[in-house]
Amino acid sequence: MKIALYPGTFDPVTVGHLDVIQRARDIFDHVIVTVARNTAKQPLFTDAERVKMIRDAVKPYRNVTVESFNGLLVSFAKKKKATAIVRGLRAISDFEYEFQMALMNRKLDDSITTVFLMPHERYTYLNSSIVREIAMLGGDISEFVPPAVRLLLLKKIRSLKK
Amino acid sequence: MKIALYPGTFDPVTVGHLDVIQRARDIFDHVIVTVARNTAKQPLFTDAERVKMIRDAVKPYRNVTVESFNGLLVSFAKKKKATAIVRGLRAISDFEYEFQMALMNRKLDDSITTVFLMPHERYTYLNSSIVREIAMLGGDISEFVPPAVRLLLLKKIRSLKK
Amino acid sequence: MKIALYPGTFDPVTVGHLDVIQRARDIFDHVIVTVARNTAKQPLFTDAERVKMIRDAVKPYRNVTVESFNGLLVSFAKKKKATAIVRGLRAISDFEYEFQMALMNRKLDDSITTVFLMPHERYTYLNSSIVREIAMLGGDISEFVPPAVRLLLLKKIRSLKK
Amino acid sequence: MKIALYPGTFDPVTVGHLDVIQRARDIFDHVIVTVARNTAKQPLFTDAERVKMIRDAVKPYRNVTVESFNGLLVSFAKKKKATAIVRGLRAISDFEYEFQMALMNRKLDDSITTVFLMPHERYTYLNSSIVREIAMLGGDISEFVPPAVRLLLLKKIRSLKK
Amino acid sequence: MKIALYPGTFDPVTVGHLDVIQRARDIFDHVIVTVARNTAKQPLFTDAERVKMIRDAVKPYRNVTVESFNGLLVSFAKKKKATAIVRGLRAISDFEYEFQMALMNRKLDDSITTVFLMPHERYTYLNSSIVREIAMLGGDISEFVPPAVRLLLLKKIRSLKK
Amino acid sequence: MKIALYPGTFDPVTVGHLDVIQRARDIFDHVIVTVARNTAKQPLFTDAERVKMIRDAVKPYRNVTVESFNGLLVSFAKKKKATAIVRGLRAISDFEYEFQMALMNRKLDDSITTVFLMPHERYTYLNSSIVREIAMLGGDISEFVPPAVRLLLLKKIRSLKK
Repeated sequence: MKIALYPGTFDPVTVGHLDVIQRARDIFDHVIVTVARNTAKQPLFTDAERVKMIRDAVKPYRNVTVESFNGLLVSFAKKKKATAIVRGLRAISDFEYEFQMALMNRKLDDSITTVFLMPHERYTYLNSSIVREIAMLGGDISEFVPPAVRLLLLKKIRSLKK
Repeated sequence: MKIALYPGTFDPVTVGHLDVIQRARDIFDHVIVTVARNTAKQPLFTDAERVKMIRDAVKPYRNVTVESFNGLLVSFAKKKKATAIVRGLRAISDFEYEFQMALMNRKLDDSITTVFLMPHERYTYLNSSIVREIAMLGGDISEFVPPAVRLLLLKKIRSLKK
Repeated sequence: MKIALYPGTFDPVTVGHLDVIQRARDIFDHVIVTVARNTAKQPLFTDAERVKMIRDAVKPYRNVTVESFNGLLVSFAKKKKATAIVRGLRAISDFEYEFQMALMNRKLDDSITTVFLMPHERYTYLNSSIVREIAMLGGDISEFVPPAVRLLLLKKIRSLKK
Repeated sequence: MKIALYPGTFDPVTVGHLDVIQRARDIFDHVIVTVARNTAKQPLFTDAERVKMIRDAVKPYRNVTVESFNGLLVSFAKKKKATAIVRGLRAISDFEYEFQMALMNRKLDDSITTVFLMPHERYTYLNSSIVREIAMLGGDISEFVPPAVRLLLLKKIRSLKK
Repeated sequence: MKIALYPGTFDPVTVGHLDVIQRARDIFDHVIVTVARNTAKQPLFTDAERVKMIRDAVKPYRNVTVESFNGLLVSFAKKKKATAIVRGLRAISDFEYEFQMALMNRKLDDSITTVFLMPHERYTYLNSSIVREIAMLGGDISEFVPPAVRLLLLKKIRSLKK
Repeated sequence: MKIALYPGTFDPVTVGHLDVIQRARDIFDHVIVTVARNTAKQPLFTDAERVKMIRDAVKPYRNVTVESFNGLLVSFAKKKKATAIVRGLRAISDFEYEFQMALMNRKLDDSITTVFLMPHERYTYLNSSIVREIAMLGGDISEFVPPAVRLLLLKKIRSLKK
């Protein structure tokens, strides 16, 4: 059975992420969406909230699960018997960072392959940070995130503004 | 009458920005330099100071005005009856960020077109942050900003060092 | 009256080109689609055919005309009293070539400004050469060119294969 | 069973290509190396020669086969029941061309996913055309191609120079 | 005698930096590794620690010295009679930042030339920040930094976690 | 004595090339401008003409000579006791090709270092092919090449048009 990790911060998950998950589950037998618990940038949502939002969104897919993790990604992959890491590649700016991570992960554990998938061109310029920014400025984000995520994001922003 | 916004942080305005303003006013009937009041990065100058510096620099141009704004750029454009957003495009690193913003703005309001102008190649690698850095290190910035801006920047830096 | 040239080879015109023409005619009073008569690469369609295909496609727009030209673009612009050159900017690979042309044109005639517009992201990776290639391999190009252009392209390819 | 195509010109196959094949066969149940019979650029080796060179090189791998093809890649994929197209992604210059092809293929057949793999960084700047060029100038290519390919390339070059 | 500066933050020095130093000392009579004392980002190691780590690593090279500096790089170059600034260029993302700095330095002092060297491709994706990150997550960094630097980095991280 | 090659096609030499030669002769004791005799693209000028044009242009510099060569650049470097290859790096599009050549040359002979210099930003978008194109279309090239080269280029073009 071929298992792949799809790691990220997902703060929050967008329809672009879901598009990559869809493609990954066509290729691999099982996909573990892997939420980075601690990141340099302080996330808006807690890791429990981020895990729950993705779990709700991927509920229809039987071969996708969601976990949060801490530490080196390659160690987590080994523990989960995953042999591939899936990453979405949207634009040039992604490219170099992603290549750096993939090369470092390969140096740390040569048995894990990074696989790049291309989300729909509709999502080329979509990322979590621009979604948060538009939501904070009162713009309409319903095209960019699942409906449940939109409500949680609006609620989170209201609680921050108090 | 064709109205365009030229949005930015302008912390402070440089001769590269003024070069773009010059080109924009040849194409549009009216150009509103639009100073972002709140930005993620804490600006060195207040928004009132930034507006005033640009107003002084564009005084000779009868079809250019300066305003600060808060919120979604496309909402401000609608309020001002602007149908275009002008952006300077200097280098590859600008390109992807600018495209992301342009696409998001188009998704938020389809009636507004982003127009990219290319500043003089002399200004390819000029931006506000490098001007601030050189000024703080005691370097000569007289080629990069209007004389009045240079004096205000030196004064601001002296007040910070106290 | 503000006149802009939109130069290109248009071999053949695609829906991506038409998208840029649409945006250009919102900004300028008059747009002259300018078909390069002689190009380094031998075009599939004659310049008369290329002009005619675009004329048919832009018939609904009263402020768009089509002409073929030979020689320096800036000289043609001067003759036509055009003060701007419009170019679509889709991807990084366009960026450097376009900047080079814009800078050279500026050096040759400083009074003409190059204006970059961003076609719909749906057309990010569309160009005439890939349309020709898919058509020659028997693929479906009906999403990429106007119906009349599709018929002419299929006819041209049949005549080549004889 | 998950089948992937790995298409290319392979004129000739390099150790960089073999590195991608190795990674692809870890992910997919079967990999069909797919040699483009007709390409815009006139290849040095006939398609029969290119197929044979790869067959010899991949003989040890039981789940890799080699075929040449003509026409649309997505039609060939459908015929072979392949659901993925594998491409190596080495550098920025690959990126845009590959994305264009992947998007066009997706538009032509939505059921096929393009999967990008990253060859070893040792092969970042290796491609068939530079190998041919070095061989023609009398340089040592033994690090860049399998030994059998090296002999065939040297023989081909001698026959050209006669 | 031709003197070059090799400026950086070196937080900490990596084998990639040492590779560039090796190449620089083949070209110039004397190389001064120039440690930026104050940087926008708060370094993990003090400037004294960073200077000492490099001094230990370059001890075998008689024509390399290490100093820390404050202020404008071009002023430091003038003081040291250096006529060149050496920079490693690994990837596209380096390119634009490096060009900006080189152009600004040239504007500030025209007599100093920036010279770009390419580290071994093995180090393409290596930088200090990824080394720190991997070390903090408990990964093995022995391939990326000299043995003494590794010990100091592990010690520093233990002291931070207390 | 430190000797560097500055290889190229120089069809014809431009003021951008001369700018790089100027910078190279400040760093190295001797610079050999190395004209590629045979190139894939058929040059407009013979190699003898290209050598002569550069010789005339670099006459004032006592430490610059000009030679044409055939074969592998690293073999020519060894013969000339050159330890460095100088290349101008203007833009992203140069970057990847130049890196590929530098890496291949390093693999072929590890003792030769490629040194990248940045021409003046005024020459960022200048190259021989655009100069030829503008000259053929009757544009003014006097800013882009030395006066003697301009005359030879105009003469060459007249002879082609007969």
